[in-house]
Amino acid sequence: MLKIYAMQSSGNCYKVRLLLSKLGVPFELIDVDLLRGENRTPDFLMKNPEGRVPLLELPGGRYLPESNAILFYLAEGTHLLPGAPLERAEVLRWMFFEQHSHEPNIGAARFWLKLVRGGRELRTHDIDRWMEEGYAALGVMERHLARRPFFVDGGLTIADIALYAHTHAAAEGDFDLGGFPSVRAWLARVAALPGHVGMDWRPEPRNQLVNMA
Amino acid sequence: MLKIYAMQSSGNCYKVRLLLSKLGVPFELIDVDLLRGENRTPDFLMKNPEGRVPLLELPGGRYLPESNAILFYLAEGTHLLPGAPLERAEVLRWMFFEQHSHEPNIGAARFWLKLVRGGRELRTHDIDRWMEEGYAALGVMERHLARRPFFVDGGLTIADIALYAHTHAAAEGDFDLGGFPSVRAWLARVAALPGHVGMDWRPEPRNQLVNMA
Repeated sequence: MLKIYAMQSSGNCYKVRLLLSKLGVPFELIDVDLLRGENRTPDFLMKNPEGRVPLLELPGGRYLPESNAILFYLAEGTHLLPGAPLERAEVLRWMFFEQHSHEPNIGAARFWLKLVRGGRELRTHDIDRWMEEGYAALGVMERHLARRPFFVDGGLTIADIALYAHTHAAAEGDFDLGGFPSVRAWLARVAALPGHVGMDWRPEPRNQLVNMA
Repeated sequence: MLKIYAMQSSGNCYKVRLLLSKLGVPFELIDVDLLRGENRTPDFLMKNPEGRVPLLELPGGRYLPESNAILFYLAEGTHLLPGAPLERAEVLRWMFFEQHSHEPNIGAARFWLKLVRGGRELRTHDIDRWMEEGYAALGVMERHLARRPFFVDGGLTIADIALYAHTHAAAEGDFDLGGFPSVRAWLARVAALPGHVGMDWRPEPRNQLVNMA
């Protein structure tokens, strides 16, 4: 069975749970709490020298980090990743946008302002930049979604899943989605589709921790 | 013929020229100078509302932005993008790393410190962060490359091309590669392979600007 090393409150980790729920693929979830340094233990650093989650462990003991690379790997051959080269490239276009222009601002703001105790004081000098660049990213999404239901023509893809994860929780990073009606309508469309789960969702107990001591 | 809208001195744009040189694919190069605002004209914003380069124009008038999505699209079916799902995902893993952890620091430092007149004064408050996070990214690359010749087993891929573009010019952003011998050896390996071109390379004149007024 697939193993996912993840922190429950991380938006990047939520992407992977949301995809696997939509695909109905069972997996074992192994909690790694970054806020308690569980990603810096020798055991975890053997698995991923960068100490980041999510991390996918495949049968045979190979590991794949980077949330969007994990999404691409797991969605291959499913309806959530188109087969045509240009549509695949458009999916990737939005996933690179997410990692370059969106998550470093909207995800980072939520992480430091909501999840890290004292984070607002620690990162005061970054807040203006997160707001400026995060709202710019939301503006790009708003213009794109004003004319289409999902990021890539043809229906929901992993581009939507990648962007949904941090966008739906943007308010926890002090972002106000009031001025982004197309983004809000898209969030509602994504959440209404089959297999949707919230960030607190975990797989059934029988699917988790079964191999843990 | 493929059209590439690009700025010659941009690392993200260089990635695309380097790939097309290696593949021997002819293309038309159309200069867009960000420093003169040529990416903010109504005509260019019709092509890419985000005003970014590189931008790929395909026959039929479709456009694809995001350098790494362009690389993935153009490399599909070639020896520079493996066919096996896990190897493809590993290529993407490093390309997401490049856009999330590498280019926003190493590329941004070069852009503001080398290319933009007065950029050092404008972005003084960002330099410490670029240095800290950029050296961390170089450390990740150094550890990975200490045990393998290229980022993904099997030879050169678009992951190497994506990471080469900004890394080979890191000194122009004040980074010192002296402490990263495996990174330097990898840079030399990449540059020694067939079809390699430097950042100043342009395609033959017959392949460029033929449709420009």
